[in-house]
Amino acid sequence: MIDENGVVRQKRTVFFVSDRTGITAETLGHSLLTQFDLDFEQVTLPFVDNVERARKVVEQVNRISGNGAPKPIVFSTVVQDDVRLLLKESNSAFFDFFDAFISPLEQELAMSSSHAVGQAHGQGNTQQYSDRIDAMNFALNHDDGVTTRQYDKAEIIIVGVSRTGKTPASIYLALQYGIYAANYPLTEDDLVEGRLPRILQPYRGKLFGLTIKPDRLQSIRSERRPNSRYASLQQCQMEVMRAEALFRREKIPFVNSTNVSIEEIATTMLHQSGLKRRVY
Amino acid sequence: MIDENGVVRQKRTVFFVSDRTGITAETLGHSLLTQFDLDFEQVTLPFVDNVERARKVVEQVNRISGNGAPKPIVFSTVVQDDVRLLLKESNSAFFDFFDAFISPLEQELAMSSSHAVGQAHGQGNTQQYSDRIDAMNFALNHDDGVTTRQYDKAEIIIVGVSRTGKTPASIYLALQYGIYAANYPLTEDDLVEGRLPRILQPYRGKLFGLTIKPDRLQSIRSERRPNSRYASLQQCQMEVMRAEALFRREKIPFVNSTNVSIEEIATTMLHQSGLKRRVY
Repeated sequence: MIDENGVVRQKRTVFFVSDRTGITAETLGHSLLTQFDLDFEQVTLPFVDNVERARKVVEQVNRISGNGAPKPIVFSTVVQDDVRLLLKESNSAFFDFFDAFISPLEQELAMSSSHAVGQAHGQGNTQQYSDRIDAMNFALNHDDGVTTRQYDKAEIIIVGVSRTGKTPASIYLALQYGIYAANYPLTEDDLVEGRLPRILQPYRGKLFGLTIKPDRLQSIRSERRPNSRYASLQQCQMEVMRAEALFRREKIPFVNSTNVSIEEIATTMLHQSGLKRRVY
Repeated sequence: MIDENGVVRQKRTVFFVSDRTGITAETLGHSLLTQFDLDFEQVTLPFVDNVERARKVVEQVNRISGNGAPKPIVFSTVVQDDVRLLLKESNSAFFDFFDAFISPLEQELAMSSSHAVGQAHGQGNTQQYSDRIDAMNFALNHDDGVTTRQYDKAEIIIVGVSRTGKTPASIYLALQYGIYAANYPLTEDDLVEGRLPRILQPYRGKLFGLTIKPDRLQSIRSERRPNSRYASLQQCQMEVMRAEALFRREKIPFVNSTNVSIEEIATTMLHQSGLKRRVY
């Protein structure tokens, strides 16, 4: 980019360096970067788990600062001391998550940390892996009301009109938290009758509503079926209004998905319904 | 739990406090806690975005230390100063992620941070939301080879024998990174012929293999169809051996899912195939 004085300015490069997946480094770094109104060039370097790889990272970082670009920023979650210390020598603004927190935590817990690599997003134990897979299969099999046979096994049943985001919310709950989440669409018939579908009535305590602003719903539905009655603003308004009235009358908690991310929807549901996540 | 002297020891309680979803706080805290061989009681408190809620958190934390239990540990990613300062007053070992990194980062970037709440897992922009949903729908529609019509749109096609974890890997790539991921099962016929299924041949450059240890595969398949030929060790060994031989012969990169998490599988695929994530 070119600034007001006609000087070409390069984006600041940010590296997320990890000895494993890089997910923790990305999450933390990204969370900090969003506090600054700047564009960054973001590079994730996972699996940096030995000195040789660390050297390559240092070369890559130094090549950038060597070119006269602004000094890169490095967010590191690397645990191994030899790798960390090498990375720290790079010509960068170096943010070391491990270093910042581990020694105060060791003090507080009055014990040494294991310095074991990449525990955070490793498989952990096979049980957790199976729990996630089972929950995900449950979500896929119980998507969009296709089958309702195992609703007694569901921990949450997400209800809402078509295209409010029920599927991603269910899958996120399954994949991230191991929650058994089904979802069930409210049809026009249900809405006109103004009653909970009979199949849902025994599971009232598990229901969680999803709603959305009618104009956003219109634009999502229009991508799918342009100029249809289904995608008309009038239809969307009617469905949303009746669905929300139903939620209120039946005392079903609900969340509006209009300006929130999949994570926020899922976290809100988890939090408000008091469900306990099965996976960390 | 009871220690070697017969003293009842309580688990240390750990709070993850956030002004939004709690995902960053959990990621950070969890990543640090895995370095200690201890059991923790973990509590996530999301959406702590005003002073009133902060007071309730402080009460909750102080109730625990008031009961003679060890001092709770608090990991906070709260951005707002008034909320943070209140939380800091709690009777806890307080780890303030924002405080630790934001001011050195402000210095490095020579600008002030916005102190805006919960940017990290907010919707960000509608484009990213749509990208994720579109990618997820693509993954769902192209799961297990059900349809192959849009393989030209796929960025990666995961191949492997039944129950190697193709579906969760595809969905994770879609949901977390916005990648268009299809997956296709290798059948016994494909393996016996020792050739790539014809339908995959035009997409050779997009293929990524998944494999698994035969005994692990046996145990996964046995849960589904106990005592079947499908789940026998002999069958699993044959399929895995032939699938890996096929990957090698066809120069298809592959990863072994036996002791790794869904995150690790997905990150490895992203990293090795050089795909660019669409979502941060």
